[in-house]
This record gives sequence, C-alpha cells and structure tokens, in this order.
Amino acid sequence: MEIKLTTGKTIPVLEKENLLQALKRNGIYLVASCGGKGICGKCRIKLLEGKSRILSTGKLEPREVEAGITLACQTFPEGDTFIDIPKESKLILGDKIALSNSGNLIELLNSFGAEIFPIVRVVNLNLPPPSIQDNISDLERLRRSLEEKDIIGMRFDHDFVSSLSNMLRTADWKITLGYTIGHDIVYISPAAVEKGRYGLAVDIGTTTVVVYLVNLMNGKLMDVGSTYNSQMRYGDDVITRIIYAIENGGLGELREAVVSDINGLLDPLLERNTLNQEDVESVVVAGNTTMTHIFWGLDPETIREEPYIPTVNFFPRWRAETARLQTNPKAPVHTLPCIASYVGGDIVAGVLASQMHRKSEIALFLDIGTNGEIVVGNSEWLVTAACSAGPCFEGSGIKHGMRATEGAVESVKINPETFEPTLGVIGHTAPVGICGSGMIDAMAEMFLKGIIDRKGKFVKGLKTKRIRDGFAGLEFVFFADKSREVVLAEVDIENILRSKAAIYAGVSVLLKEVGFGLDAIERVYIAGGFGNYLDIDKAIILGMLPDLPREKFSFLGNASITGAYLCLLSKDLRQEAGIIASKMTYIELSISRSFMDEYMSALFLPHTHMRLFPTVKELLSGK
Amino acid sequence: MEIKLTTGKTIPVLEKENLLQALKRNGIYLVASCGGKGICGKCRIKLLEGKSRILSTGKLEPREVEAGITLACQTFPEGDTFIDIPKESKLILGDKIALSNSGNLIELLNSFGAEIFPIVRVVNLNLPPPSIQDNISDLERLRRSLEEKDIIGMRFDHDFVSSLSNMLRTADWKITLGYTIGHDIVYISPAAVEKGRYGLAVDIGTTTVVVYLVNLMNGKLMDVGSTYNSQMRYGDDVITRIIYAIENGGLGELREAVVSDINGLLDPLLERNTLNQEDVESVVVAGNTTMTHIFWGLDPETIREEPYIPTVNFFPRWRAETARLQTNPKAPVHTLPCIASYVGGDIVAGVLASQMHRKSEIALFLDIGTNGEIVVGNSEWLVTAACSAGPCFEGSGIKHGMRATEGAVESVKINPETFEPTLGVIGHTAPVGICGSGMIDAMAEMFLKGIIDRKGKFVKGLKTKRIRDGFAGLEFVFFADKSREVVLAEVDIENILRSKAAIYAGVSVLLKEVGFGLDAIERVYIAGGFGNYLDIDKAIILGMLPDLPREKFSFLGNASITGAYLCLLSKDLRQEAGIIASKMTYIELSISRSFMDEYMSALFLPHTHMRLFPTVKELLSGK
Repeated sequence: MEIKLTTGKTIPVLEKENLLQALKRNGIYLVASCGGKGICGKCRIKLLEGKSRILSTGKLEPREVEAGITLACQTFPEGDTFIDIPKESKLILGDKIALSNSGNLIELLNSFGAEIFPIVRVVNLNLPPPSIQDNISDLERLRRSLEEKDIIGMRFDHDFVSSLSNMLRTADWKITLGYTIGHDIVYISPAAVEKGRYGLAVDIGTTTVVVYLVNLMNGKLMDVGSTYNSQMRYGDDVITRIIYAIENGGLGELREAVVSDINGLLDPLLERNTLNQEDVESVVVAGNTTMTHIFWGLDPETIREEPYIPTVNFFPRWRAETARLQTNPKAPVHTLPCIASYVGGDIVAGVLASQMHRKSEIALFLDIGTNGEIVVGNSEWLVTAACSAGPCFEGSGIKHGMRATEGAVESVKINPETFEPTLGVIGHTAPVGICGSGMIDAMAEMFLKGIIDRKGKFVKGLKTKRIRDGFAGLEFVFFADKSREVVLAEVDIENILRSKAAIYAGVSVLLKEVGFGLDAIERVYIAGGFGNYLDIDKAIILGMLPDLPREKFSFLGNASITGAYLCLLSKDLRQEAGIIASKMTYIELSISRSFMDEYMSALFLPHTHMRLFPTVKELLSGK
Repeated sequence: MEIKLTTGKTIPVLEKENLLQALKRNGIYLVASCGGKGICGKCRIKLLEGKSRILSTGKLEPREVEAGITLACQTFPEGDTFIDIPKESKLILGDKIALSNSGNLIELLNSFGAEIFPIVRVVNLNLPPPSIQDNISDLERLRRSLEEKDIIGMRFDHDFVSSLSNMLRTADWKITLGYTIGHDIVYISPAAVEKGRYGLAVDIGTTTVVVYLVNLMNGKLMDVGSTYNSQMRYGDDVITRIIYAIENGGLGELREAVVSDINGLLDPLLERNTLNQEDVESVVVAGNTTMTHIFWGLDPETIREEPYIPTVNFFPRWRAETARLQTNPKAPVHTLPCIASYVGGDIVAGVLASQMHRKSEIALFLDIGTNGEIVVGNSEWLVTAACSAGPCFEGSGIKHGMRATEGAVESVKINPETFEPTLGVIGHTAPVGICGSGMIDAMAEMFLKGIIDRKGKFVKGLKTKRIRDGFAGLEFVFFADKSREVVLAEVDIENILRSKAAIYAGVSVLLKEVGFGLDAIERVYIAGGFGNYLDIDKAIILGMLPDLPREKFSFLGNASITGAYLCLLSKDLRQEAGIIASKMTYIELSISRSFMDEYMSALFLPHTHMRLFPTVKELLSGK
C-alpha cells in the first residue's frame, strides 16, 4: 500500500499503520499535540482518493468530515491513498527560534563578579624523557609530574591510558592535559599545539532547543543555534511525552529526537567556526525535569505518578559520549540541578540569570512556556511551584491555536463600533491560526470591547456576524476565506481562562504559603520563549499577571540558556546554581487546599475580586 | 583452493596465504614458537599431494625435505593440496595445567594475619519510601541514606542511575549495594535476595592461564580452571608476541586470545557451581608486564625498545566490562602492579605469597617459566632482575623440545657402560619429544656419564651408536623408530647451556649489586609452572642453581595465582603487594658490566669455577 501526496511524493504504508505513523516513519511530521490519540484534532489531512478505515473523527466538524478532512492518527488506509496535507497541519521543525534578552553576556557574567573558570582545567607538563636510569612507566611518569603540581587522585580511564604512550612520544613529552576537578582526564594534546577552548550551553525546552557555542577563554558567545524540539512529533506537553515513553517504549525515540536536535544544531555551528567536535571540551545543559531525564535516557515514569518523584535532581557529571553528544566524547556534561518533578534545571538557571537570589527585594519569577513555573523569594529564601497552565499559549488545545510562526495572528485590534478586527500576522501572510500573544490580545480586546463577559462568555445580542454558532458552540470569526478560517470558540476561551487562572492562582498561593500578599512583590521577572512577546497590559487585563506597576516587570527572555551560559563559564556560578536548587522549597500545588479556591476565583476576567485589579477596574469604568 | 587433511577434513586456503595462516584461520593451530618466521622449525607438515611454492626449508634436514616435510609457515599452496599434520606439530590447547603447591589457601591467608576484606564492600539500606512531603529524587534519597552511614563521595554512573528507579521500587526500598572503596557502584540488588559473593583470581602466564573461583565470604577455593595461553599460536615468548602485536597489528588478536581463554575457563566453573556471570563481583589479575599490557589491550611496543618502558606499572582499577571479562560487567578488576618491562605482577604476587618480604632472612626467589625472573631480599630491601633465559625449557629452540604433555620425555637414566638410555615418558606412550625436566635430566646424566664434557661438547671416541653426526652436527639419539626419533643435538645443548648460564649469572650479579655472595642466601623459593618438576640435584649439577644445601630450597609452584588469591581476599594484602612493587629495585642486567662476565663463566658444566659447586665436584671425583 502506498500514500500519494499532492506534493507528488509517494510513501509506503504498512498493514495496521495509521497515516500519522506512516508519515512520521517517512520523515513527514504533522502537528500532533496529543501524541496521536485523536484528541487534539491537529493532524488534519484531506483524503482525496482511496478507501480508509476511520476510527474517529474527534473534534472535526461535520462539514469538514464531508469535505474529506480526517485526522491522520485515526485514519487507517485500506489501499492506495491520495491525500493533501494542509499547511497548518505540518509540524515546522528546524525553524529558527527567536532569541531573546541575553544582551551582552560577558557584561552579565562580570556583573556577577565571577571569574571565568570552565569545568575543564588545563595543565601544561614537561615530562623528563625516560632512560634506563629513570625507567618508570609512562603513567607513573605522568603521575609524578602531576603530583609535583599538587594534582593528585586523578582517575585514568582505559581509553586515556591506551593512547598515552603514543601521545607522550608524539608530543616529545611536552603535553597539555585537560581534566575535571572530579579528576577525570578530558584530553591530552601536544603542548606545542595551540588549542582553543570551546564549550556548549544547551537549553532543552519542551518546545524549543537552543545551543550557544562559547569561547571558554574569554566568555565570548561565538554562535547560536536553535530549533524546535522534534519530540513534538510525539506530543506537545511533558505528560504526553512521558506517556509515549512508557506506553510505547518510546523513551529511546524521544531521547534520540532531542539529542539529534542538539547534534544537528552543533554541526553547522562547528562548520561555521571551523572547529572540530573534539574542540568542544565541556557542555552545560538546562531543561525541565522531564526533558532532562529524557535527554539522559532516564525513565520519566515516576515523574508523572504521585508522589511525583524524579530519578535524579542533582545529576552526576557524566560524559558527552554517554549523552551521545557529538563533542569531545570525554567532555564533561554539567546538568543544571532540578528541584522537583515539575520544576527543573531551566528554572534554576533562570533564577541564577535573574540574580533575584542575590538581592534583598522580594521578586516573582515567572516562566511561561509550555508549562508555567513560579519562583518567589530573595537572597534569604526561595519557594517554587509549578502550575499546570498547559501549553495552550503554544496553540495546544485551541482549535486554531498554533506556534508563533508564519501565518500566526499575533495581535488583534477590535473596532468598538463594528466589532471588526484588525489582525497583525507573523510574516504578513494570510492568517493560518492564532498564537499565544494573539490569544491574549484577542481576549483582552474582546473583553474590553464588550464582546465577552467576565466569565468569558459571548455577550448576547451584539450586532455582528462575527459571532456565530459553530459546531463546538459559539465562536468569534477573526478571519475567513475560501480555503480556511481562524476563530476563537467559547471552549477555546475557557481553555485560555483556565490557563491564566492557573498562573495567577499559583502566584497567589505561593505568596500566601510564605505569608505575603501580592503587594510584597518588588519585582517581576518574566522568562520563557513566550514571555518575551507578552503584552503586560493585556495580560493584566486578562488577570493572568498581578496588577502591579508596569515598571516592576522585566523580561528575561530565555533565562534558561543564559543561566546555562553562566554555569559553562564559572565554577562559582555552577556552585551558586547548586545552592539555589538546594535551598529552593517546592510547594506541591495539586495538594494545596487554597489552590483550588484561588483558581476558581481567578476563572473570571480579570478576577472575581475586582479590587485586586484596580487599573483594570479603572480601564473598564473609564470606557 | 583447498587443503585436504589426512583426518578427512577439508579447509579453504586463500591466495597468498601460507599453510600456517590457512590452518590458523580455520581453527587448526600448529606449534609456531617463532610466530611463523621459518626459524623455529616446529610447524612441520607433510605434503602428500599438490603443488606448493616453498619459500624456505629452514632447519629441516635434507632427508626430511626429501620425505615431503615442509614448514607450514613457508609453504604457499598453488592448487588443491593434501597434507598430513604430525602429532608433534599440533599445538595442544585447552589441556589441563597441573596445579601446584597452593596447599590450604585459607590457612595461608590466616598465616598472614590478614582479615577477609574483598574489593567490593557491601551495605544494606532501608530507604524510607517517598511521599508528597518527602519527595526528593530517588538518587538523593539513596545519597541521604548513604551519608547517614558515612558513605560519601560515591560516583554514580549512568547505567546505575538508569536502573535505579525500577530497582528501588522492585526491592520495596530495601536494597543491598555493592561498591568499591574508590566509590563506584558495582551492584544493587533487593536486600531480600540472599546473595553469595564470588571472585576470580587469574594468573596470566606467557604459556598458561589459571583461574581460581573463590568464595569471598570465607575464602574457600571453590573451583579451578587452567589452560594453555592460546596466544601461543602467535609465538612462544613475550618478544615474539610483542612483535606480532606491532608488525601485524595483532594486539587485538592477542588480547582476544587470552581474554577468550579466561572466559572459556570461567564458563564451566560457573556452570559447575551453578552461578551466573553477575555473581562474580571482583577479579584480581597477575601476569608479567607484557601479558598484563596485552590483557588490557595496551600497546606493548615500548616494552621491547630501550629504555624498556611499560605504559603502566600501577594499573588503575578498571572494570570487567573494559577487560571484556564475562563476569558482572561492573566488577572491579585489580591488576597486580608490575615493576618494570620484564618483571611483572606475577613476580609481585609470588613474592607476596612467599612472605620473603616479611622476614629478616635473605631469600632468593626464582621464577623459571617462559622467562626467568629473580628477586633477592628480605623485609628491609628487595632487588629484582630478569634474565633472558628464554623459553628453551618449554621446548622452544630445541629441535625435539616440547611442553610437558603426553609423549614428552621427562626423565632420563643412562647406563654408564653401554650408554643406553632409559626414558620416563609422560603418559607412558612412545616418546614424541623432550620437555624441560627431561632436558635437565638428560644433560646431567650425559655429563655425569662422560658423554658430554664441561663445555657441553660430545666426548670423542665413545663406544656407542647413540651419538651420530646429524644434519645440524653431532647429536645423541634417545629414541628412534620408523615414524619418529628424539635426539638432543650439540646446538640444543648449547641452547640449554645459555639458558642455565643466564639464570645463574642473573642470581650472581643481583647478589653482587647488593654486596652479597651466594652464601648469604638463607632460603631459595622456586616458583613457576616449570619449577615444580625441577630436580634440584640435577639443576645444581648443570650449574643452573647455586650449590646450596638442599633443605634451603622450597617449591612454591604457581606462586602468582596464590598471590592473586591473597589479593582477592584481603585489602591489607592488596596494599602489601603495592608496597612490594614500590620498594623493589629493578636492576637492568642488559646494561650490567659484570653480567656478561658472569654469564661467560657460567657457560660451563657446572661452571668455570668448580669451587662454586663443591657437591658437584665431589660427585665427579667420587665417580
């Protein structure tokens, strides 16, 4: 059996295989937020010819079904099939991820007062050549010279010793040795060869992967690579991926996906900078707990089950060859420590980058990415929690939701008289869907212009054809032409409402746990890929962020990669990150009594208690 | 092209391949002491049919060449060939090696006053199961419990951490952990499972390999395995093997050969004792420097070249998986330290087993195996040297020399009137060749009965047909029938003379270096596989051993395996072996001025200076 695509390509399909699997097996990836369970409704394709068994039509509308649209994950071909894959169903991988507020990283490093001290230390040795009189073995000769420099207790692995004799003689007994403080040899090279020193900082996000190539001599950021985490083929959020890892024995696949992403980014970085794999001597990795576990090939099963226990929080420093990274195979890989199952090394890195742990002012650190993590504290104490905000701001669970790529509606203005919207679209093309910032813009506008009420329901009796009764209930049509439309339905709005409520409630409960109110917050750091495009005013109108003076908010952008960069360069900051992780207290919101109360109160626009949002109140009354 | 054997077997032969290589490639091994260079003349075969290009006939006699005998390593078939392989050309591998004076090992261990303290330590842990309140990661939970028992600084490798979560839950949080003092985990198992503890002591000789399976709880020797070192296919002595490793890129083959020998011995040991590979938790290996390097896959090239430098003397404690041993892959492998290129860990083990390093009396330790190593000293000092005695006592370089296997002449009596010999043959079969003890017996007899003079030359005009002028000069015929004969030629006798002179000169020089005479020796320990069958009286008549009172001599047998056994069981003795290796001073005889003088003087029977051998003088005059 074969599938023919409208692009002209033909791919084979196996017995009992659905279209999503067949396409995936042939390197064609569709958006599959739910991991192929028929729930998310994203993997739409159009059946043009051929007979298929269709298990379920999921969220598809009758008119879509009529038009031949099916969900690839629910479609089992029973013969040769001819299909079309709409643009919005295609998973865009390998795209550039916009990078953010890293600014001048060397200046940032200096602002910490930290000296450059990479993970690998280097010593030059000039060994006396052996003679009949001084005939100790090569390894003892090396040990003796190291001892003279007070370097003792070194562990010599078999690979190193295997290459030692030849290297010492090639180098005429003058060598440079790279080693870790944990006393493992990383490399040996002739002292005569001038050697640059390079490292990698890696941020493994659920959605994106970012790699920094750094000169370890001076801290210079030499190059940057970024891509979508191609684990997205297996689902949008960490839970879907954990399930895939367990149920489908897919841990290996997931690991391979993210490691390939990193290696795929590394390759052109090395080429552009005329470096070899061997030149990369150390790596620092930051990611959430699930991503970190999968990166290291550790079973994430227990992360998902109560009492939510990761296998490791403080990762041993394993080697690049164990991680399967295509750097120097002996390069130590330092993993930013995790706090708990849903607060990971990316948050530790972010807090480090924010420096909130060094200041007396009480700060709120918010990472709004695929999930939402919250930290509150200062130089004395730190508490953290994860709120299951869900990946709706990345398009998941929203009918026409999508990531901030070409064709995404990212801003919305609505005419208060006609209710006609003006859309800002990424890439200035026809709209394909709506991304996170577009959703927030749209909802804030709809609320301010009286299209939806405080419960997020459409106001009855408005004079506009934009509101219509769709297949899944009422919806607002932002765009429609022959081929596609972009709407926000009431169920989508409910979804967004739940997400924003989870974030706000998380912040409130965390502050309450430490006996403070929102007014105690002196600074708010917004981190995460999404954070950067967030309109603070709109987010406050929605009641997602607390109603605080705007000047208290700072955007950190991808703070995780910034923290990883800092740890790559400084021993003190690696230790500092460890201390942050050790002293941060994790609060499990899912068992917090007050969380549900706070959450319910936050399921309004902006909130049940309007007094908490004075500027929004003013805005509404001023209207 | 094919080779047909008289056994009926047919094997393929490749273009440009000689018969030795073709046979080896098909698992048929011939004696090839020189490693296939056409020098030793051991790989004789008989060409029955077919045309071959014969590069050289080496030491073959014209009548042998006429009879169709060729050297397999010099014979290149040019078409289908029919051959016969004589019994004496076949390399006997997998044969049982007679074991020696190990006696009651537990008693020996006790005599050291050493407690049983294996390499792997064991701790039982009862971890509190995780809860929402106590939700640290699995690894931190383990670390915390270890810290409570003052076990800190443990290194957790990736394999271990990968299996941790599942194991902890399977074991219901009650586990037994095996770890090394160097802080590596060796195994983790449910505490509920009663686990035996087993280790391997391994002696890797140039000629033989011996393995002891030991119960680490009580020191009991459970089982023994031994075989010939199948590296013999590539040559008899360490130099031939080093050359093979370098010139033919054959290090991998040599390594594979000896590791397979050990694994091959281990297999039936485990089966007989109903154990699994995983049950073997630690290994101690003793061998000479070259054997040890090859075992670990380290290039032995620099061992052979002045200034004779090994890559390692004090080996790091690598793992069984690195050694490719089929035990628990994480089992630490402790390697007995080597002293120099030609005095290895087998000698350190032997000295340890002898306890000479613990006593005030000055002792001589002699290991006469494939090479000869000498140690002199006591509890205050130790000096050592290697004398290139060569493997002639194992049959190499002797026309009809062979190992002590079936068909070997091992004892000789000669009738003083008729000069007719009476032969003792191993296995009571027709003689095939002559082994080391047979050579010493034969030479002592020929000397005492006036057949050879003090220079080792045949005495002229004796009334016997046993002495004849052979192809390679004069020779004494011990046995002859239609199919084969066993002779000792003058060149063989010269060879033996050189070997015994090297040993005696080595002992003399070593004593001189520390300012002593032979009379200072209060005890002589004879170690090595060969040592056990040595007739002390005959060896003194030859002038191989110093003429000391017979009660001063003790046989240790295979002292290397005994030392390895001791180190397997006791931490103190592992340290003691290290101290022995550190304090032993190595004397390089090849650059010693007096060695050549002493050697020349020892090239007589028993010695130039008869006064050094009073009992032999008496024996000769009494005749």
